[in-house]
Formats: sequence, C-alpha cells, structure tokens
Amino acid sequence: VSLVGAGPGDPDLLTWRAIERLKAADVVFYDGLVPPALLRLAARAEHVTVARRAGAKTLTQEDVNRRLIDGARRGQRVVRLKSGDPFVFGRGGEEALALAAAGVPFEVVPGLSSAIAAPALAGIPVTHRGLSAALVVVSGHAAAAYAGLLTSIAPGSATIVVLMGLAERGGIRRCLAAAGWPSETPAAIVRHASRPDQHVWLGTLETLDDGHEPADASGDEAPGVIVIGQVVSLATVPDVVRVCVVGEERETAWQP
Amino acid sequence: VSLVGAGPGDPDLLTWRAIERLKAADVVFYDGLVPPALLRLAARAEHVTVARRAGAKTLTQEDVNRRLIDGARRGQRVVRLKSGDPFVFGRGGEEALALAAAGVPFEVVPGLSSAIAAPALAGIPVTHRGLSAALVVVSGHAAAAYAGLLTSIAPGSATIVVLMGLAERGGIRRCLAAAGWPSETPAAIVRHASRPDQHVWLGTLETLDDGHEPADASGDEAPGVIVIGQVVSLATVPDVVRVCVVGEERETAWQP
Repeated sequence: VSLVGAGPGDPDLLTWRAIERLKAADVVFYDGLVPPALLRLAARAEHVTVARRAGAKTLTQEDVNRRLIDGARRGQRVVRLKSGDPFVFGRGGEEALALAAAGVPFEVVPGLSSAIAAPALAGIPVTHRGLSAALVVVSGHAAAAYAGLLTSIAPGSATIVVLMGLAERGGIRRCLAAAGWPSETPAAIVRHASRPDQHVWLGTLETLDDGHEPADASGDEAPGVIVIGQVVSLATVPDVVRVCVVGEERETAWQP
Repeated sequence: VSLVGAGPGDPDLLTWRAIERLKAADVVFYDGLVPPALLRLAARAEHVTVARRAGAKTLTQEDVNRRLIDGARRGQRVVRLKSGDPFVFGRGGEEALALAAAGVPFEVVPGLSSAIAAPALAGIPVTHRGLSAALVVVSGHAAAAYAGLLTSIAPGSATIVVLMGLAERGGIRRCLAAAGWPSETPAAIVRHASRPDQHVWLGTLETLDDGHEPADASGDEAPGVIVIGQVVSLATVPDVVRVCVVGEERETAWQP
C-alpha cells in the first residue's frame, strides 16, 4: 500500500514517485478534492472515491482502513491518493497505524502540502529574511486547537497559514485581533492553487471576513488557503501563473 | 527563470515540473545540499554552485540575483535549484523580488519541504487527530525568532519542527522546558531524509541534546530535521524505507 500525496491539484506537481505508483496501481482510493486528471494516470486501476460527501454510501475511516488492508492481502497494488500531503491534516497517520497493526507493508510518498505550495504559487514566501522566520499551520476544522495557539502567539512573530478555514475566517480574525495583531496585517486567500481557476485575494486581517465569498463555495469543503503576515505584502504574482487579484472594492484581472 | 524546489534529495521526489525544467535548462544555479543525481537531470546545462562554503569565491545573495537576471537577459533558460522548497527558509523570496524588480519573467516551482517530508519519511505525521492539530516550523538559524515563538506556545498545542537546528538542540530544549513542556515529550531527529543514508533518532525532549552527535556532522550545514510532539510516538517506520532507530543507550538497526 502506498499512501500518496497528490499535491495541490496540477498533475505536473506530482512527484515522480507518485506518478510511478499511480501507473502501477491496481486500485486507487481517492479523496473528493483529487482532480480527474490525476486519476487518469492510474489507467489500469480501479478508482474508488472515499469522499465524505459521496452520498449515502460514504465510507467511514474504518471502512477505508479495512479496504486498504483487504486489497493488499489480495495481492493488489493499492494507492491511497490524498490531496496535498498525506500527513498534513490528511488522516494518513490513522491509515498508517491501521496498516502497521495489520502487518501490511506500506510506504508514505510525501506530496506538496497546500500549506506551503498555495502561498508559493501566489508568489508569497512563507518565510523571508527580516519579515518572518517561522510558520504556523492550523486547520479551520480544529477550532479549539487554532484558537488556543493563535491567541498565544506574539503579533507578527510567525506567518499564519490556515487550511480548510474559509468558513472560519471570522474566528481566525478575532483570535489574532485579541492577541494584538494589527488590523492592517496583510492577508491573502489562495483558492484552487495550481489549477486553471486559481484565484488569489489580497487584503488585510481587518477585511479577511468581509463579503468576498468565493463564487464556487460549496461550504467548508471549498479548497482555500488563508495566509496572514507581513510576507503577504511580498506577493510577486509570478508571470506564468494566471492570477486574479481581488482587492477591496476593486477587481483586477492580472495580465501576463 | 524558474525558482525550483528540489525536495529532500531523492530524485524520485522531484515534481514532474521540476524534472521538465531541469531537462530544458541552459544553466542551473544550485545550493550545496543538492545531490549530484539531481543535477545529472540537467544534462545539457551549465552547473554553477552557489554553496556558501564553496571556498573563497562564494557568491553573495546579490551576486546570485544578478547572475539569474543576466542569464535570463541573454535568453538562457535559467533554473535556480534549492533543496526543499524555495520559499521555506530558502531565500527564494529575495530572488523573486529581485527578478520582479528587474522585470524578468519567472515562476516558482514548489518542492517538498523537509519540514513535512522528513517526518513523513520517518513515519511521523505532523498532524494527527487527537494528538496535534497544528504545526509550527522554525529555523535553528533564527534563534531570536524561535526563542520568542517557542516560549509562547502552550505545551503540547502543536507539533514543533526545527530546520537547520542540530546545532541549536540545547537552546530549543531549554525554550520548550521554560514554557512548561514535559521532559518526556517525544522527539525525533531525521537526518538525510529520503537518501540512502537516512537516519532517524527517536528519544524525548530531555534527551534531545544528549551526546548523539551525527557521525557525519559538518557543523550547522548538516541536514537534519528535529520533530517534537506527541505525534513522534506514532512513528510507524514504513517498511520500504531503511531506517535506523537510535535510542537512549541502544542502537537498533531496523529490519525490513
């Protein structure tokens, strides 16, 4: 069994090892956020979705664990394909433990985590000499964890990246404001990083939860990465990436 | 100009886009930690080291910026190859700003950061339901930054990853101890992640700076990633990665 990170979505951002594992796979279990172009690499494999919103027949984590183990025991080459990195808010650890407990050989193939790749693809370095020498990554799905952590961090002492946090923008802004972060701290929201419809919103902590709803929002599953800190002011918007910068009361299609 | 992340070192962990850029390159500027196997992919390119220890003729950051710009203006396909990710303690931001200021088109090709990939390759998930819902990444080269941040974080509220911090183990242990982290908090040191000589040390915060010096230590440039937090107790040691686990007063060669 290979626990494989799919990266942010563009097939070109898969690692070579991930491509090899997909090509050789007999069965691929994939998350809802994995785009079809990646699955097409696994041309000879059965494709099984384990998306939590796949309808009434949603698999539980225990179901997934059992199917990975069953496939391996039948002699299949099993790939568990997860968007981003399997071990960053991906429950890869739970699958690894289940496989280890069952005595099933497995490997972890790291993937590009959106925590770093999404800012990079928007031209934002998460660290930068003189601006930020630390990175804090939290999940919008773990409100208790991020609230405690974000309120304890000295203002400006790290770049904050929030994964799966679009629905939690207000809570995040309030946590940082309570900790003394200036309201004019630069902030960005990167959606659909690396995909043809990549969008970057640039604003400030104060305007983070204003009404710039993503047009395609489908609740908290909408992929989006929030970046907060002075490094956001560096966003260089690389030439070869199509980016729309949506500011306060203005919208600028960026021209390459 | 492509600012390309080389990942932790194994060529199989390059992204497809990084491989394509290397193959097409006319000139590659690379860091000291980039292994020769990666450079061989750039078969038709001139290879230029910008290692800080390359001797008397070490290039300054300004020299590197200027050579990237000069190459692009001569019409060359220029690759700036950095270990890990260009925007995680890689000074990629400084190069991006210099290129943007000079009006030179460029792109960022994210790479696997050791902050996430090194723990993963040692079987350690940096987040895990019930154990850790946050990740803090600091650099051992930025003592002022990590000291302030680490002493402010509530014990156990995040997984701590320290890059380039082998020489700073004592300082890191003292920061966390001062903040109230229990001395028995699990800790790991992953060296040469993804390479044939990958080594994993597993211990505790208390034993982090005991005398388990890496045999190949060459000062603070020795690549090594420190991981601190309960997630380290999950280290599953995937079957297909050769790992040596060195504990307190024992050494166990792990048998696949």
